[in-house]
Amino acid sequence: MSRDFSRLMGYARYVVSEVNKIIDEVVSGKPSKLYDASSHLIKAGGKRLRPLALVLSGRMYGLNEKLGFIAGASVEILHNFTLIHDDIMDKDQFRRGVPTVHTVYGEDTAILAGDLLFAKSYETLSKLSGLVPSDRLINAFKELTWAAVTVAEGQALDMEFEGRWDVTVDEYLEMIYKKTAGLFKSSLVIGALLAGAPSSEITYLEEFAKGVGIAFQIRDDVLGLVADEAVLGKPVYSDLREGKKTVLVIHALSRLNPGEKERLMSVLGKRDAKIGELKEVADLIRSTGAIEFAEGLADTYLMKGLDYLSRTQPVDHEAKDLLKDLALYVTERNY
Amino acid sequence: MSRDFSRLMGYARYVVSEVNKIIDEVVSGKPSKLYDASSHLIKAGGKRLRPLALVLSGRMYGLNEKLGFIAGASVEILHNFTLIHDDIMDKDQFRRGVPTVHTVYGEDTAILAGDLLFAKSYETLSKLSGLVPSDRLINAFKELTWAAVTVAEGQALDMEFEGRWDVTVDEYLEMIYKKTAGLFKSSLVIGALLAGAPSSEITYLEEFAKGVGIAFQIRDDVLGLVADEAVLGKPVYSDLREGKKTVLVIHALSRLNPGEKERLMSVLGKRDAKIGELKEVADLIRSTGAIEFAEGLADTYLMKGLDYLSRTQPVDHEAKDLLKDLALYVTERNY
Repeated sequence: MSRDFSRLMGYARYVVSEVNKIIDEVVSGKPSKLYDASSHLIKAGGKRLRPLALVLSGRMYGLNEKLGFIAGASVEILHNFTLIHDDIMDKDQFRRGVPTVHTVYGEDTAILAGDLLFAKSYETLSKLSGLVPSDRLINAFKELTWAAVTVAEGQALDMEFEGRWDVTVDEYLEMIYKKTAGLFKSSLVIGALLAGAPSSEITYLEEFAKGVGIAFQIRDDVLGLVADEAVLGKPVYSDLREGKKTVLVIHALSRLNPGEKERLMSVLGKRDAKIGELKEVADLIRSTGAIEFAEGLADTYLMKGLDYLSRTQPVDHEAKDLLKDLALYVTERNY
Repeated sequence: MSRDFSRLMGYARYVVSEVNKIIDEVVSGKPSKLYDASSHLIKAGGKRLRPLALVLSGRMYGLNEKLGFIAGASVEILHNFTLIHDDIMDKDQFRRGVPTVHTVYGEDTAILAGDLLFAKSYETLSKLSGLVPSDRLINAFKELTWAAVTVAEGQALDMEFEGRWDVTVDEYLEMIYKKTAGLFKSSLVIGALLAGAPSSEITYLEEFAKGVGIAFQIRDDVLGLVADEAVLGKPVYSDLREGKKTVLVIHALSRLNPGEKERLMSVLGKRDAKIGELKEVADLIRSTGAIEFAEGLADTYLMKGLDYLSRTQPVDHEAKDLLKDLALYVTERNY
């Protein structure tokens, strides 16, 4: 029953290669330590999902692919900036299978590397000046800025939640919308804006992105509980160690009996927790049906998202099909 | 012989008040801890020199003052972002007479507060959309981005220099151009760009800003050696404690005899140095004529800058006069 993603994978490889060329060119310069730190995480890989989404939404309304690559590089650079700073705040040691930027270069240089990438994201987008109508480019700048503001607010909520035990599912959904779905939404919107798509189409794409983005993050939360280190690219159970209020934890907290709840709370956020404790607590969470609850929630959002995509009326239907493939691929339960 | 700055001061008060209104509006929202942290340093004061310069350069070529306030708020917000992150990297405990953001809110929130302000700087500038021709606004976005990239490169050089003993005066000048003069230059350029000034005029303003910005930073280095805590808004001798390669230190290193040089090197960058040691080393630096050397260098840059300003042909001559006053005021030796 597994869907065939080979057409998507082929196109993704092409987009990754073109986008990487642009990023490599923009993120190079001196002082070399700063630029090395700035490109460390980018060179470690990553699927470039946001550029891919942007190129496809642009294509849907007739945007030249090459212009999409430039804007795609811009959102990917912004994404990497947020990852570098998040890793400092979350004290994460690994990402994409390599040591994080602050682990290799120290926190000061990692802060600065993030700042540089933030600026380079705008520098990249501004390369479209003269290639698209100015008003469209200004709208793209605005959307990129909205994403940057929103991601910061989302990360603040995520950190605030670490210190709270009464986070609701609605608060969780707001947080992951801001932290994860926001930039995915902006990627799709920027593609469409640059193509000059009508605002009704952009609204559909926004709702599509919101649904897929939330489903994607919920899947990521589940992966954090069930996947192994090779899949995660970082140590297992780091969400638990950091005291993240994932949807699984929120569900479990509402279902466990007082004794079990106390046990969960005593381990959650314990930076030096032993693997045995973490495994025990992971089992406790699973025993509440948290994974089934999360999967149901993800399905609801994904279906809603796909429904909005189906309402769009693009000029390039292949791009729309690939975008649907992308949505299904990133939310697939390959765990 | 002291120049009368009362007209400049009166106008500056007006600009500060208008710019602060815009900043207060843009930097407000939720989560409240994040927004409180983001506005902490802004509310602590600051002279708003960059907005003032921007409003004046805009006025020189006919830009409506009110549009200058908006763009001025944008560059001031960007400036405050860089200060928050620099204070983390430099481990500074005080600025503008108040505890730094990371001291009050912790490093994680301070990193995020800086990131939010970075984004808010673009959000503020984008408020000019529809109020100025789109091409001019795009050029302003590009200039703001150039400043953000350049400031990060300058900060990286500043940190790199802390670990080196062979920094030359030319390297120092490149570093302070990037770290300090760059955003001052961009402020002036953005004002002129938004007004639609001819490129020859913008070139003059750039050279003016470069000269004044460098002279300003050299004066700041001297203040760090001779001024007291009330003037600095932070503990005396923090440059020495942090091992900053100021122009004074660079000059002294080239003039001291081997024994004295060794003494200077043993204290410079010593975070827990006693006040007596720092005072001894400060006297050692002064004994080389470093202050006179620095003042001579500052004078050269200031004069060169003013010469470029004199070549401009604005439509508003009062604005040009005020800009000259501003240059003289910020480089004045009131120590």
